[in-house]
Amino acid sequence: MTAVTVVYFSGYGHTRLIAETVAEGAQAALVEIDGQGDITEAQWEQLQQSDAIIFGAPTYMGGAPWQFKKFADASSRIWAVRGWQDKIFGGFTNSASLNGDKQVTLISLQTLASQHGGIWVSLGQLPANKLASTREEANSLGGSVGLLAQSPSDAGADKIPSGDLESAKAYGKRVAEIAARLK
Amino acid sequence: MTAVTVVYFSGYGHTRLIAETVAEGAQAALVEIDGQGDITEAQWEQLQQSDAIIFGAPTYMGGAPWQFKKFADASSRIWAVRGWQDKIFGGFTNSASLNGDKQVTLISLQTLASQHGGIWVSLGQLPANKLASTREEANSLGGSVGLLAQSPSDAGADKIPSGDLESAKAYGKRVAEIAARLK
Amino acid sequence: MTAVTVVYFSGYGHTRLIAETVAEGAQAALVEIDGQGDITEAQWEQLQQSDAIIFGAPTYMGGAPWQFKKFADASSRIWAVRGWQDKIFGGFTNSASLNGDKQVTLISLQTLASQHGGIWVSLGQLPANKLASTREEANSLGGSVGLLAQSPSDAGADKIPSGDLESAKAYGKRVAEIAARLK
Amino acid sequence: MTAVTVVYFSGYGHTRLIAETVAEGAQAALVEIDGQGDITEAQWEQLQQSDAIIFGAPTYMGGAPWQFKKFADASSRIWAVRGWQDKIFGGFTNSASLNGDKQVTLISLQTLASQHGGIWVSLGQLPANKLASTREEANSLGGSVGLLAQSPSDAGADKIPSGDLESAKAYGKRVAEIAARLK
Repeated sequence: MTAVTVVYFSGYGHTRLIAETVAEGAQAALVEIDGQGDITEAQWEQLQQSDAIIFGAPTYMGGAPWQFKKFADASSRIWAVRGWQDKIFGGFTNSASLNGDKQVTLISLQTLASQHGGIWVSLGQLPANKLASTREEANSLGGSVGLLAQSPSDAGADKIPSGDLESAKAYGKRVAEIAARLK
Repeated sequence: MTAVTVVYFSGYGHTRLIAETVAEGAQAALVEIDGQGDITEAQWEQLQQSDAIIFGAPTYMGGAPWQFKKFADASSRIWAVRGWQDKIFGGFTNSASLNGDKQVTLISLQTLASQHGGIWVSLGQLPANKLASTREEANSLGGSVGLLAQSPSDAGADKIPSGDLESAKAYGKRVAEIAARLK
Repeated sequence: MTAVTVVYFSGYGHTRLIAETVAEGAQAALVEIDGQGDITEAQWEQLQQSDAIIFGAPTYMGGAPWQFKKFADASSRIWAVRGWQDKIFGGFTNSASLNGDKQVTLISLQTLASQHGGIWVSLGQLPANKLASTREEANSLGGSVGLLAQSPSDAGADKIPSGDLESAKAYGKRVAEIAARLK
Repeated sequence: MTAVTVVYFSGYGHTRLIAETVAEGAQAALVEIDGQGDITEAQWEQLQQSDAIIFGAPTYMGGAPWQFKKFADASSRIWAVRGWQDKIFGGFTNSASLNGDKQVTLISLQTLASQHGGIWVSLGQLPANKLASTREEANSLGGSVGLLAQSPSDAGADKIPSGDLESAKAYGKRVAEIAARLK
């Protein structure tokens, strides 16, 4: 059986909902990085046992929050011994703006996976970008490197467009399937 | 008097409209890169005489089109003699998706300006990203490094949201003002 | 049997040598983009039949040359029908400087692969970055997203450090092995 | 008189030496982010009073360390009121590898400055990338967006090549001069 884990930080619950949706699609376990940027030793072990790891973070000030970066920095001990080499990776980010420098976060997640010697799974969905397209269609933000989601700055997670969640679920499924094929 | 030039490539007219709008805000001259990726010697001289240069291109397959890149590659003869050192630069991109890897294009435009020893002017506009925000508000895509615009894949330039054009005009004005201050 | 193709542009022969070295490691076919940015229909078909595609380009003015981008732009007809979806991808770049914005080229290659719905293979090699490290050791530039190589601005391909070529061969082998596992 | 501040995080002293060298060139004040990612209110005020802010951080796992990001995240309260709009910005990074994903850190620093509505000063130095070039020459890494420095993974700050420090000093001077012109 293929083991997939979504490891994420969520500041206000929006990214948590997306993480849960990705995890639903991937049949994945969830590891939430806490407010101090830490996860438990059992959670590190959970990541180690996973065939695929999906990184998730909101975009704050043009990048993943410090708590996610603290987790990334802590993974350097694994990097040094090539502990995650050849694992499957994916990533997602959420922020209040439609665009809003989300791509810089995705680039950093992809780079982190590459530092670990990973194999990166793209979103794999065509964009919904016609005149009649709505935010209730999958990939209406038009991502490609990973999953993009958006939640208005003054709204709760319940206002994340259904299309973004549909994309999230499909992306989780995709990462899990590719991980299964590689196993 | 401050001289600003907008140099751009447009495949189907959408990016031309944005270039014209940026130029209106900046009181700038326009240089259009042709379908073979060329500009005339007089246009190269126009760029040389400019205090500020604003790069514009659509995003195709995750980056500026080859015609724009041919122009960028041709600028290497100027790079070698530091001909554009300390000029003011800015940039914009347009594509069919709301997000759609536009940021990778902006990063490449900013890098090109940096290769030339330039000074880069950010967009300088807060995003419109509330639940009630519409695409008719300025910077509703939430850009920061440069100007972002979007035009649906099946629509003409007349369907570019008015907010994107408002942002474009304000960005042109901003680049010109900073160029004037630096002169 | 796994089919791997290295598709590249080389301006002066340095990138060709690296492409040949990657191809040797991968037991791959080679497709060279010509001076007009074109490849033949037979070469497009070759790419279509490949399990893995490795992109290669020098870094000029902070990005892949226009000829490579013309190839990338032309691949949009394949993008539209998801013709390369789930293929394995990798990439490499070469330039005269040790660093020299090579990463911006790698990011653009990775983004191109992602637009096509691809699966990206990182370099997977620890860096040689100790005080006693030399350019004759593998990955002494310290790449991670893809392969980095360097050739001084006034020297021929014979002056590319042996460590960069060793990395190139190992990366080709790695991409082919992962493609074989996924098949 | 022009006020320039270098704000940086240093894990082991290497980045501190580079920060001090940039500051020497810029006649700048220094603000060191502490091990918890914090600076004092007086230091925030120092940044507010500065005409130019230069960001500095090592590259860990493909990006600035979490302590620097915590500082960046905390600057969101200033972002919301456009407190740093139109300031001059620059940035630098150091890591053990010659290349080593340093560019991803520079992109994130440039993006942070852009989020604040800033004006970014590129390195402005041609690369030293000939066959006979040595690491004792200025900009022998070939940076352009900002300053790049390198210190082997097993060596102290005293082993940072003199060329990197020469570049650092010249970059500081350049940022200060452009800030003075804009004032």
